[in-house]
Amino acid sequence: MSTTEKKLPFSSDYMEGAHPNIIQRLAETNLVSSAGYGTDEFSEAARERIRLACRCPDAEIHFLVGGTQANATVIDALLRIYQGVIAPDTGHISLHEAGAIEAGGHKVLTLPHTMGKLSAGQIEAMLKEYQEDVNHEHMVMPGMVYLSQPTEYGTLYSHKELGEISRVCRENGLPLYMDGARLAYALACPENDVSLADIADLCDVFTIGGTKCGALFGEAVVIPQKGRIPGFFTIVKQHGALLAKGRLLGIQFDELFRDHLYEHIGESAIAFAGQIRAAWKQCGYRLYYETPTNQVFCLIKNSEMQRLAERVEFGFWEKYDEDSTVIRLATSWATREENVRELIQGFSDLHEG
Amino acid sequence: MSTTEKKLPFSSDYMEGAHPNIIQRLAETNLVSSAGYGTDEFSEAARERIRLACRCPDAEIHFLVGGTQANATVIDALLRIYQGVIAPDTGHISLHEAGAIEAGGHKVLTLPHTMGKLSAGQIEAMLKEYQEDVNHEHMVMPGMVYLSQPTEYGTLYSHKELGEISRVCRENGLPLYMDGARLAYALACPENDVSLADIADLCDVFTIGGTKCGALFGEAVVIPQKGRIPGFFTIVKQHGALLAKGRLLGIQFDELFRDHLYEHIGESAIAFAGQIRAAWKQCGYRLYYETPTNQVFCLIKNSEMQRLAERVEFGFWEKYDEDSTVIRLATSWATREENVRELIQGFSDLHEG
Amino acid sequence: MSTTEKKLPFSSDYMEGAHPNIIQRLAETNLVSSAGYGTDEFSEAARERIRLACRCPDAEIHFLVGGTQANATVIDALLRIYQGVIAPDTGHISLHEAGAIEAGGHKVLTLPHTMGKLSAGQIEAMLKEYQEDVNHEHMVMPGMVYLSQPTEYGTLYSHKELGEISRVCRENGLPLYMDGARLAYALACPENDVSLADIADLCDVFTIGGTKCGALFGEAVVIPQKGRIPGFFTIVKQHGALLAKGRLLGIQFDELFRDHLYEHIGESAIAFAGQIRAAWKQCGYRLYYETPTNQVFCLIKNSEMQRLAERVEFGFWEKYDEDSTVIRLATSWATREENVRELIQGFSDLHEG
Amino acid sequence: MSTTEKKLPFSSDYMEGAHPNIIQRLAETNLVSSAGYGTDEFSEAARERIRLACRCPDAEIHFLVGGTQANATVIDALLRIYQGVIAPDTGHISLHEAGAIEAGGHKVLTLPHTMGKLSAGQIEAMLKEYQEDVNHEHMVMPGMVYLSQPTEYGTLYSHKELGEISRVCRENGLPLYMDGARLAYALACPENDVSLADIADLCDVFTIGGTKCGALFGEAVVIPQKGRIPGFFTIVKQHGALLAKGRLLGIQFDELFRDHLYEHIGESAIAFAGQIRAAWKQCGYRLYYETPTNQVFCLIKNSEMQRLAERVEFGFWEKYDEDSTVIRLATSWATREENVRELIQGFSDLHEG
Repeated sequence: MSTTEKKLPFSSDYMEGAHPNIIQRLAETNLVSSAGYGTDEFSEAARERIRLACRCPDAEIHFLVGGTQANATVIDALLRIYQGVIAPDTGHISLHEAGAIEAGGHKVLTLPHTMGKLSAGQIEAMLKEYQEDVNHEHMVMPGMVYLSQPTEYGTLYSHKELGEISRVCRENGLPLYMDGARLAYALACPENDVSLADIADLCDVFTIGGTKCGALFGEAVVIPQKGRIPGFFTIVKQHGALLAKGRLLGIQFDELFRDHLYEHIGESAIAFAGQIRAAWKQCGYRLYYETPTNQVFCLIKNSEMQRLAERVEFGFWEKYDEDSTVIRLATSWATREENVRELIQGFSDLHEG
Repeated sequence: MSTTEKKLPFSSDYMEGAHPNIIQRLAETNLVSSAGYGTDEFSEAARERIRLACRCPDAEIHFLVGGTQANATVIDALLRIYQGVIAPDTGHISLHEAGAIEAGGHKVLTLPHTMGKLSAGQIEAMLKEYQEDVNHEHMVMPGMVYLSQPTEYGTLYSHKELGEISRVCRENGLPLYMDGARLAYALACPENDVSLADIADLCDVFTIGGTKCGALFGEAVVIPQKGRIPGFFTIVKQHGALLAKGRLLGIQFDELFRDHLYEHIGESAIAFAGQIRAAWKQCGYRLYYETPTNQVFCLIKNSEMQRLAERVEFGFWEKYDEDSTVIRLATSWATREENVRELIQGFSDLHEG
Repeated sequence: MSTTEKKLPFSSDYMEGAHPNIIQRLAETNLVSSAGYGTDEFSEAARERIRLACRCPDAEIHFLVGGTQANATVIDALLRIYQGVIAPDTGHISLHEAGAIEAGGHKVLTLPHTMGKLSAGQIEAMLKEYQEDVNHEHMVMPGMVYLSQPTEYGTLYSHKELGEISRVCRENGLPLYMDGARLAYALACPENDVSLADIADLCDVFTIGGTKCGALFGEAVVIPQKGRIPGFFTIVKQHGALLAKGRLLGIQFDELFRDHLYEHIGESAIAFAGQIRAAWKQCGYRLYYETPTNQVFCLIKNSEMQRLAERVEFGFWEKYDEDSTVIRLATSWATREENVRELIQGFSDLHEG
Repeated sequence: MSTTEKKLPFSSDYMEGAHPNIIQRLAETNLVSSAGYGTDEFSEAARERIRLACRCPDAEIHFLVGGTQANATVIDALLRIYQGVIAPDTGHISLHEAGAIEAGGHKVLTLPHTMGKLSAGQIEAMLKEYQEDVNHEHMVMPGMVYLSQPTEYGTLYSHKELGEISRVCRENGLPLYMDGARLAYALACPENDVSLADIADLCDVFTIGGTKCGALFGEAVVIPQKGRIPGFFTIVKQHGALLAKGRLLGIQFDELFRDHLYEHIGESAIAFAGQIRAAWKQCGYRLYYETPTNQVFCLIKNSEMQRLAERVEFGFWEKYDEDSTVIRLATSWATREENVRELIQGFSDLHEG
């Protein structure tokens, strides 16, 4: 397959395979025999590296295959049957998981987002409104909070914001769950002031995303307080989320957390996204949102979008008006500099004659 | 890690990685960018190879990650809410999937197995009993049939047996679903007279197992009659069973079905299992079941089992009596001849002085 | 218990028992023995009366106990697992059924209401947006439409409005389900132009509410097209919604549909509600919504509300602002004229000195 | 409707209405207005009477409409998602609730019954087997025990038996739930040595059946330890099991527990069942099971069964062999002496030729 004729790949951050270290390690260890279901030595080594990176020596860590799977498993495990999960209306679980949370029996209690984010005040107000509603016993009880870092809009919670949310959650007995599907891009971002250790300190459960961050696939579910969720292994199995050859996840996360790779793997993607944003504006175009991570949201005329589509793969985000559209260009750890350069050079050709 | 000190690995058929062709192809294609969620060209090529192998040009094929996941997704997709799935009491879904079928809202309607198998007569009798029960509208309606080939006991349905079951199912409007987690070991077995094309002809849905048959992971769900299950893609997504980088499954099945690899990959495992069975009996021991595929079920005294465990990894199957146990030795496509030879040589040392 | 000291009962329309005819018939038939689970002759007679009233001789009719139960049972029965139910954001299923729909695995796809109602245009736009979304296979598919007549705000769909919604639903293959918990109050309303026969013509399933409309309890689920939902009896049983002594429901609906009682039983409630609305406005107060059925939504200052609460039971609806509240006064078939008169007379005393 | 031509009614214990006291009270209170959802004064009075009868002053008591509903609600409330409920294979939840437990996501872990009963030893052995199974984390965890008193076979747990089961449950942290759908017939039985207070002492949750024991409908769910199940009211609502006019349940249980009615209401049924058993044997017939409560299980030749069916309504229990059948004759609080006499007199006419 000739890649030279292919379009420039900016449609998402899961279009390539894995970091070369991972491929090499998978090849080297291929015929070693090991125990199944995550009880192998590779997985244990990976867990130990993650505990160190999170400064959380007692953390319980489970490796799952995908993001929707991890979200549904964690949420079903944390909630009682009469409870729902608070999430921004733009949350992945609210829109793009085909009703996986409802299939587990739980309502997603959406709050209007601000650039993809929730605030502590919103959560507090929702809890207050619930408690004060004379009919609240006839309603779904808010049972936990879901948020993502970075958000679906590429924004970041600051340490202060996350701390306030965590405080509201703890004061009200609600577990706080962070979906870190793109966490490496947060950690690599100069604007970010929330470390892995902070997350482990402030959240009850969180995921460290592999799929979009250098792995072939895999999300590490971290439960800082060991034993916090009784029966979690069985819940994972019940959700069809227990990989027989768990070693494959262990090997990948062992490599991702060797020499702090995970904390740096997103850096080029962040830099490239910054260059794309700058070039886009320099060409006289508008960004729809200006966000600091690896997603670039461009407002573009439909006729220009068609020209762009001849050479570039990008994501459709939403219709802006009859004449214009918001598109998303995503960079990743695998994005190549020459592609970024070619992309940027093409921006000036888009203008309508 | 030195493997020389490790015990002989016969505990299961998912202890190693993947067939070398797969590893090589994953490495070669690693940085190619491709579309997500199974819409890539690798997956499409794999589908085409499977359609050819099954002589079923219109088959709809979805690649899922694991077996429990595939079973739960297919069963939830085929049943209406008031229906249950008929399965042998030894079926994987009956016992070892942590209630995944019930978590989807469905009862497993178990029938007593004969060496892991159901018969057409049993299914017919169950349906008759249901229909004749004056209270049957208060009971779970049998809505489909689940079986596995080979079964959990390593036995095989003959073409005649499967044909009769298929006929009963079709006469009664019940979809027939075959779990082919170890299907390669059936296909490689001289005793087997059921081809992939036969399965596609007789079943409504079946899986072609990758995890235990040469892949890193992956189960191909084959629906011979395209469109048989409306919304299946979304159902897969809802079950957290849609791999973002679907290419990884496409590449693996493309390799497994290149040059008929899948139909032959189990042959050495079958031969080795035969040698182990012969040697075991020659040493004066008894087999608990004599079955033709890659699992060997040995009856062994507990004291001898302890000696064996010092050098060999095997599976505990069940307690036989106070003094004896049934153990399982599994071979796989990755089993090495020298390990089989060493295993067999050790049998004679087990006898109690 | 002395009722003379009790407050005036306007808090809801399910505070009393049943129409005297029902009580009398229950007493008369009490020791007659009859078959269970709705197979008795009383239930069959009631079904026949309802079929006549709906001009729908083939309708399939099941009697359930309560409204949340009926909604959950019907919705679970109509949807496939990957589908959700379109409903106004004020719908009873959206808010006040404790997540019963989600507990059955389905998302409630809410649309913003206009005085409690949906429009055909909204539904059409939602379907179009879904179909055009490039990610729609990752999203919950709209699978049916839920609405109520009268709505939770006491408004009515006109024949034209309901006809348009029905047309959109049928063009798109979506079942239309009407929750008729308070249907008698719609039928008794001079503004109403939608008859039982119209509903049977335009909807795929609807309920005829008994609990709030003269029965002790009970909702008749009407499926105009017999056999439309395979296995419905078993689905009812599975939802714990099958009354052992189904005769109790049969007797009640037999009485409610004798001599067109159901179509007239709400008339006094409608008249009284009109008198209350007129008196409220005459006293210089504002109605929050002006709707034609048996619920009166009054905007009231908090200090005045406290005075009213000393003598009257009413429902809290919502906070209007810091100083004012929206309350609900509900009339019913059981509302007594002297209570309405006393209520109205008290309005003038509320004004702040 | 002329009842004189009707067959003798012995098919079940829910064929008539309610004890006359209940009908009278419902009529008297019919137009009293009261609060909804079980917060009314009738319900509170009934709760107080039940607490006294159970000598359990802190018990939390909820009134539900039916048995399947109560079972599903309690079991869903007690179990975590990875747990199942241990029950005898003859348990109502195992067979005749249309999969309501599985619809809530839980497996029924059946144990072979002895005359409808479980033993402490069986439960202990199942728990031990689960804990010792090397794969138990891949299996459904036993999370509670379900049993019924009397059982579906009409047998009774003795105080000793129930005490032993309770001890095993408490030692292993499993809640014990008793389904008391026919509890009045146990309490009225001379052989019985388990009082309401004993049940409250030994069980974590139990129901006091109304439907079959003198009420029109209704099951009281008793939770001896208040607060044992957080959110139970909302769980009831979510299950569609919260009656709007909760007063109807309150009034019925208030009457059933006035002057110890419930503890005596089954006495005539027990006496009549004893007379039927004696007469059956005296006529030279065999009982299939000899059990002490209100169900009589007769072994009868098919030709004789046909003759009996001309005059008597009875329940089909199971096929015995080609020529014979097991039928069930049920008495109830409403059974009339003249009907019993007529039934018994007819026995001698059944004999062939």
